[in-house]
Amino acid sequence: MSPATARLVPPSPDETPTTRERIVEVAARSFREIGYQKTTVADIARTLKMSPANVYRFFDSKKAINEAVVERVTGEIEAMIAAIATAPNLDAPERLTRIVTALHTDCRRRWEAHPRVHEMVEAAMSESWSVCQAHVDRIEAVFARVIEDGVREGQFTPSDPRAAAACLHAGIVRYCHPLLVSRQQDMTLPPLPTMIAFLLGALRAAEP
Amino acid sequence: MSPATARLVPPSPDETPTTRERIVEVAARSFREIGYQKTTVADIARTLKMSPANVYRFFDSKKAINEAVVERVTGEIEAMIAAIATAPNLDAPERLTRIVTALHTDCRRRWEAHPRVHEMVEAAMSESWSVCQAHVDRIEAVFARVIEDGVREGQFTPSDPRAAAACLHAGIVRYCHPLLVSRQQDMTLPPLPTMIAFLLGALRAAEP
Repeated sequence: MSPATARLVPPSPDETPTTRERIVEVAARSFREIGYQKTTVADIARTLKMSPANVYRFFDSKKAINEAVVERVTGEIEAMIAAIATAPNLDAPERLTRIVTALHTDCRRRWEAHPRVHEMVEAAMSESWSVCQAHVDRIEAVFARVIEDGVREGQFTPSDPRAAAACLHAGIVRYCHPLLVSRQQDMTLPPLPTMIAFLLGALRAAEP
Repeated sequence: MSPATARLVPPSPDETPTTRERIVEVAARSFREIGYQKTTVADIARTLKMSPANVYRFFDSKKAINEAVVERVTGEIEAMIAAIATAPNLDAPERLTRIVTALHTDCRRRWEAHPRVHEMVEAAMSESWSVCQAHVDRIEAVFARVIEDGVREGQFTPSDPRAAAACLHAGIVRYCHPLLVSRQQDMTLPPLPTMIAFLLGALRAAEP
């Protein structure tokens, strides 16, 4: 099908996920490289050789496209840490250490490769909070499962693993939050292994 | 002296601190209320019924004025926590609890009263990092002193109180960083007392 006719033909039900995915793919690239603010739905449509109206059949706004892009990125991050959380032959402190390190490394890598992702994150945080909150909830659910394992193994003490998971997550924000990692260049922060050891201490400490 | 002649008369050495202080005062108010971005040196001069050239005799740029404003605010915060750090009849965990709570409350209060302070902080973080770093260092020095007291009292265990202070500070960033507190409205964060108890656990834990 030539680009000239593509825009006139409604996608068949089978094609729908593919078109949607192509929109998300092109939007993700444009948000990373040009920035969320400067990317328009018309730009995305032009790259896909579609009419803007066709893009709007799949997403009712740029905000909705950003939500799909953010869900794809957060889905990748969640799959990465879920794999570490269930790795065999590692105790709970080691799994938490690897998860936090992976979150930090991933966040830095994405930001260093594409400083403009920060606009996408800003937009999601101010316009699409529920997408961000769902990501936070899923990360903390992974932490809670590993903390429960650690309690069972006798390494950790929290009586409320979910609350401890939320504290652990709040405690690493300086290392794993896209808006802060991007400002970290000049900052004299404790090295991440020192910070992880400190927070694992909190999980080992007797509750008062 | 009338405003019309004031601008023509060079300040005497005695007057210098007062004029400088008035510039900082007016700038601080304008940055809070109108925002750092929209405030110009000409606006500050106009409010003070001075020429911009007179303002430039004291500060060579808007950035330099912002540094003085930020130093005033951070000085207030540091004085507040230094007073808590040396309060009599409180043990080290209680003093740390009060310091962290005061940092959080102060940060929220400033942001809620004047959401535009966020621009001033953004500008300081990107243009005047050494001013921010000096503030971080002074906060962590206060934390380190209280942690040392806690070690002496047998309540805390860190062998390196300064490193522990840096970890404690990194751990509370979600509650005390002006750029994050301002986004906190919708966030389901652990309540601050839960987070403080968690971090005090890290200070009580036996080192591995």
